[in-house]
Amino acid sequence: MTEQPKKAVVLLSGGLDSSTVLAMARAQGYACYALSFDYGQRADAELAAASAVAQQLGVVAHKVLRLGLESIGGSALTDRSIDVPEQLQDGVPVTYVPARNTVFLSLALGWAEVLEAQAIFIGVNAVDYSGYPDCRPEFIAAFQNLARVATKASSDGKEIRIETPLLHLTKAEIIRQGGVLGLDYSLTVSCYQADAAGRACGLCDSCRLRAQGFADAGVVDVTRYGGARRG
Amino acid sequence: MTEQPKKAVVLLSGGLDSSTVLAMARAQGYACYALSFDYGQRADAELAAASAVAQQLGVVAHKVLRLGLESIGGSALTDRSIDVPEQLQDGVPVTYVPARNTVFLSLALGWAEVLEAQAIFIGVNAVDYSGYPDCRPEFIAAFQNLARVATKASSDGKEIRIETPLLHLTKAEIIRQGGVLGLDYSLTVSCYQADAAGRACGLCDSCRLRAQGFADAGVVDVTRYGGARRG
Repeated sequence: MTEQPKKAVVLLSGGLDSSTVLAMARAQGYACYALSFDYGQRADAELAAASAVAQQLGVVAHKVLRLGLESIGGSALTDRSIDVPEQLQDGVPVTYVPARNTVFLSLALGWAEVLEAQAIFIGVNAVDYSGYPDCRPEFIAAFQNLARVATKASSDGKEIRIETPLLHLTKAEIIRQGGVLGLDYSLTVSCYQADAAGRACGLCDSCRLRAQGFADAGVVDVTRYGGARRG
Repeated sequence: MTEQPKKAVVLLSGGLDSSTVLAMARAQGYACYALSFDYGQRADAELAAASAVAQQLGVVAHKVLRLGLESIGGSALTDRSIDVPEQLQDGVPVTYVPARNTVFLSLALGWAEVLEAQAIFIGVNAVDYSGYPDCRPEFIAAFQNLARVATKASSDGKEIRIETPLLHLTKAEIIRQGGVLGLDYSLTVSCYQADAAGRACGLCDSCRLRAQGFADAGVVDVTRYGGARRG
């Protein structure tokens, strides 16, 4: 009798962080089930990137769930009447999508339960976290606590762990890890307003943090930039 | 200067419990924003019921979010290859939808944050709860704890409370409360397999609990039953 491989649901946006997390989960021996969301985000190119990364890294399945977050509004990422800022802002930025990670983790929890997965991987980061409340360690701890009582799996005594391997890494450390694991970062898209071909603007918060990460890591920045880039 | 009315997001399935909760939230003076989900549930009639109830009770807005839970599967309510049982089962029943209340509350949290609402109302019930793990008081407490750290509102010191006015009521007590508040229960649909006209089967767990509730309350059962009913 062969042993069942351990399974993980991996939240995959197609950006640098979540793609690295997928590479890490694979390296830890998990059979990976990638979960992406089509939630009215500006950058449709993210989903194409997620597919490319999922394919490169050999997931068992890649599911894209449609989620009408744009009808809730309140974020520059889903509401086209709010501009994406090109300077780092104080406080919680307008690119914050209300309760996004709570929603994403909840849906991952549902799928993990159906798959009888042992873990959910999410690429939150408390170092370069852009001021998002739902990227903090206390948020993850509270969600883990919720997962313990929220599911049928939990009432059967099976815990689904929330794994956050990037939580305390800098962007440069993340990029070095991904490089070691053979991840091709040119497939990934981090830009909040990438063009249809997946080319980055080079101006938004997410582009700035990413470019700085490559610089700090001393790794060539393979990001594909588009016409909108300045400087 | 007029005072801003307090606002609440109310999760509204169109069933007996959530409709009563909406009536209660209104009676407490909240401007109510009803939130329903089209998640591949068998009973499309639920959503029609939710609209009728929202209209009768005068909500400010009623939003129906599409959510692809059927692609996650694992429940008789979203997977048509699993039969809805006609007997009460031991343990967590097959009608349990993985992490459903976690997902619903997460999306309510996002909308509450955008609306700057003070509360989210949900009709969970720990008495006649059909064995669902995400209807227990410890689940609600864990979600409240999560809400405290998950949102931008929480980092501004504004708490969004999770209100569960039915938590410790019996079905009969719920029905009596709704009656006092003028709720027309013939508009509501609780059946897991109601027909297109919203007529109940009279056989599933949900129908049995509801019928028993009317009997125990000594209130005439105004439920509209369809051809599938036996006995």
